[in-house]
Amino acid sequence: MTREKYNEQVEKALAYFEKAHIVLTEEEKENVEVADFGKNMVDELGLQLVVYINTDRVCAKEMVLLPYQTCPEHKHIPTEGMSGKEETFRCRYGEVYLYVEGEKNTEQLQAKLPESDVTVFHEIVLKPGEQYTIMPETLHWFQAGKDGAVISEFSTRSTDETDVFTDKTIIRETKIEE
Amino acid sequence: MTREKYNEQVEKALAYFEKAHIVLTEEEKENVEVADFGKNMVDELGLQLVVYINTDRVCAKEMVLLPYQTCPEHKHIPTEGMSGKEETFRCRYGEVYLYVEGEKNTEQLQAKLPESDVTVFHEIVLKPGEQYTIMPETLHWFQAGKDGAVISEFSTRSTDETDVFTDKTIIRETKIEE
Repeated sequence: MTREKYNEQVEKALAYFEKAHIVLTEEEKENVEVADFGKNMVDELGLQLVVYINTDRVCAKEMVLLPYQTCPEHKHIPTEGMSGKEETFRCRYGEVYLYVEGEKNTEQLQAKLPESDVTVFHEIVLKPGEQYTIMPETLHWFQAGKDGAVISEFSTRSTDETDVFTDKTIIRETKIEE
Repeated sequence: MTREKYNEQVEKALAYFEKAHIVLTEEEKENVEVADFGKNMVDELGLQLVVYINTDRVCAKEMVLLPYQTCPEHKHIPTEGMSGKEETFRCRYGEVYLYVEGEKNTEQLQAKLPESDVTVFHEIVLKPGEQYTIMPETLHWFQAGKDGAVISEFSTRSTDETDVFTDKTIIRETKIEE
């Protein structure tokens, strides 16, 4: 991703945080992260986030998904002797289509099929104030609806580097071309 | 506390959540908790809260403090073989005066001295977007400023029943007179 595109995503994310009335410090605004999963189509496959805290035991983040932007399918495996990450997503703004392992429970998915491999289709729709907890080692992917979404994540320690993605062409670390 | 007073506190808390633009489900609104610490002066010593999630590993809450209302001094000790609770407070609305163990760093406390025993006076002032992490077994107490406060808490499992309060007349469980 170019630096220009990265900064563009940050600006878009800040506008969403404002719409959702999430107050950030100046330092946090300067450190909004953009993940493009190495696919070079960040508006389709990507995520913008602010990490509030990530200690050995607890992590909290605020995430922004642009309209129909997808966080690709992955799971959290045990890392450094600790159980995999457990995470709760709470929708603060917009609408989130979350897919987890389990019986396919709808004929017509609310989400558009993303440009990366997906294999789980148990659909959970989250509107503002609604939340869902994903236990460790459970495959999941999620997408925002037409208005984008702001999502709070409450979890155990975040170790993105050991996340296992279904689409093996994904690279979790974002590379910025200067 | 009477049921009437309890309901009054719930209504006040809901007004604060609205001011802070925190969206709650109808079920959450009906389950706002009020803690009076058994002191029968809930407007001075008390706390209103909504628990989003509390699993074996992760807890997230949204708390309301009314103007100058204080959560009395306590610490989180190891429980059921697990380390004590680690918690991060993030101010979403208003102003919070937080006191933890450590050097007294101000001549004049921002908080009013509460009607329960306090022994730690290292002051941290949190405005919206600011946060502070309290490690296990650290004594702490906190109070809202004149406009009240809304605080998000991200933590390990919450086990209120083993919290150790400095004021030994405190009872953590709220009793409602019907």
